[in-house]
Amino acid sequence: MKNILIIGCGLIGSSLLRAVVDKKIAKKIFIYEKSRSSILKIKKLKLPCEITTDFKKIIPNLDLIIFCTPLGEYEKIILKINRYLSPKTIITDVGSSKEKSIELIRKKLKKGIFWTSSHPIAGSEISGPEHGAKDLFLNKWCILIKEKNTNMKHLGILSKLWKKIGSRVAIMDPKKHDTVFSMTSHLPHLVAYNLVKTATDFEKQQRYELIKFSAGGLRDFSRIAASNEIMWRDIFFNNQKNISKAIDLFIKNLRSFKKDIQSKNNRSIIKKLVDTKKVRKKIIKLKQDIDKPDFGRS
Amino acid sequence: MKNILIIGCGLIGSSLLRAVVDKKIAKKIFIYEKSRSSILKIKKLKLPCEITTDFKKIIPNLDLIIFCTPLGEYEKIILKINRYLSPKTIITDVGSSKEKSIELIRKKLKKGIFWTSSHPIAGSEISGPEHGAKDLFLNKWCILIKEKNTNMKHLGILSKLWKKIGSRVAIMDPKKHDTVFSMTSHLPHLVAYNLVKTATDFEKQQRYELIKFSAGGLRDFSRIAASNEIMWRDIFFNNQKNISKAIDLFIKNLRSFKKDIQSKNNRSIIKKLVDTKKVRKKIIKLKQDIDKPDFGRS
Repeated sequence: MKNILIIGCGLIGSSLLRAVVDKKIAKKIFIYEKSRSSILKIKKLKLPCEITTDFKKIIPNLDLIIFCTPLGEYEKIILKINRYLSPKTIITDVGSSKEKSIELIRKKLKKGIFWTSSHPIAGSEISGPEHGAKDLFLNKWCILIKEKNTNMKHLGILSKLWKKIGSRVAIMDPKKHDTVFSMTSHLPHLVAYNLVKTATDFEKQQRYELIKFSAGGLRDFSRIAASNEIMWRDIFFNNQKNISKAIDLFIKNLRSFKKDIQSKNNRSIIKKLVDTKKVRKKIIKLKQDIDKPDFGRS
Repeated sequence: MKNILIIGCGLIGSSLLRAVVDKKIAKKIFIYEKSRSSILKIKKLKLPCEITTDFKKIIPNLDLIIFCTPLGEYEKIILKINRYLSPKTIITDVGSSKEKSIELIRKKLKKGIFWTSSHPIAGSEISGPEHGAKDLFLNKWCILIKEKNTNMKHLGILSKLWKKIGSRVAIMDPKKHDTVFSMTSHLPHLVAYNLVKTATDFEKQQRYELIKFSAGGLRDFSRIAASNEIMWRDIFFNNQKNISKAIDLFIKNLRSFKKDIQSKNNRSIIKKLVDTKKVRKKIIKLKQDIDKPDFGRS
């Protein structure tokens, strides 16, 4: 490729920038970034890119545009760039929720333009261009979205690109994507946020110091609950339907656990605890986590 | 001290054994262990101890007995050792729940004998003597339980012992202990087990492969949900009252989150997400977790 535009240069955007440069995938990378402080960081880090706002000049010559902003930013930017777009430019994004955003894109994107959505399962509780890394996508899944009207040539090129920067590619339709990740990512984040909130509410109620004793389990949740609030608000709002269902199933199961505890139902609770233990082994076998106890922390 | 008996030589018991040997706290350490496979491991590892079942012979000469079994084992063992106990021997345990176990001890332990309960906030998802480490308690909190009838001399000696093997000591009554840890440890474990159970239930319902995409958040919970099932059943059953309350507060908050999501209440959800983010910083400042992103995994 000759020219790539990355819109939003936070953790994911700047990691993509570094990975694309490292693998010599494009000759030139443009960055559009609205945050003043992120722009200063990008300049200070001397990331190999050109920061631009001149869509009129650059967009006609782009091979690829990658949206790396929170989902809530898409509409504004689409409306800004629409008039300069042509069908030959590949457009993708890295958003964590798909059905609603694709609905929006269908409505707002200029007719005849293709958008082929991506979702790299990579990231962490930190944000900002200073935390990006060229290896962020290495051995991580990247989901590519295929629909009826997907441009198969674009899908193929994107698939190659993700593989080149180290990812394993899986293809899903938007519905399946949002169902799977409501359970493996969105609900876990919500539950982590909620657990930390519950503990702090309780600390205020009881006037006990709790947080200092968080090494017994709470600390693990606090990591996920430190994730970027704008990004996660947008994911929760976008995948509302699936997350609501996931919450209901979670509460139903939690009530069943409570019943087991209150009635001291040994057989039922042991079955639950043993079954979940097996999942950890499966996750490690699937190389979705490291096999060191306590994440190798201690 | 001359002689110590450790009852139950799993992760915690064998770590205590190693730490006590390392700090030259006792001349001789006896181990009582009912699991045949653990005994074989202890022998293979050549841990510096004498495995025994001869309570009659050793108990009269003991300075300290430490219970490191699941809570559900206490009664049986107390009844076995009662007749050989004398008030000069310090007795402690490392159980994670206190009110119910202290009630049981009060009923079952021979009159005139002192039991001063400990709870080291240390451990991980792995169990067994092969995983023990002499540094397991280093910089970790150890809670000592103080009641009206606590033997203050015993409490003082135990406090010194825990500090000698690296712990920071805090003193609580059983009620406060069980309230604090219902929130910082027991609820997080229950929620982790429940999340993994919910994901596997969902996987069966949908016939989608979910677990392979667990790097988006679920994998973190699977670690805690791989903890020892007997130990955790006993904790859940013992601290039933506080855990039930914690579950209710958790569900109440989760419903509020769901409401925010369904009504797209931006202000309310952002407040929740920003408030919880601050807790992570506090936890790191209190040295309850490492300050590397993603626990330093990637």
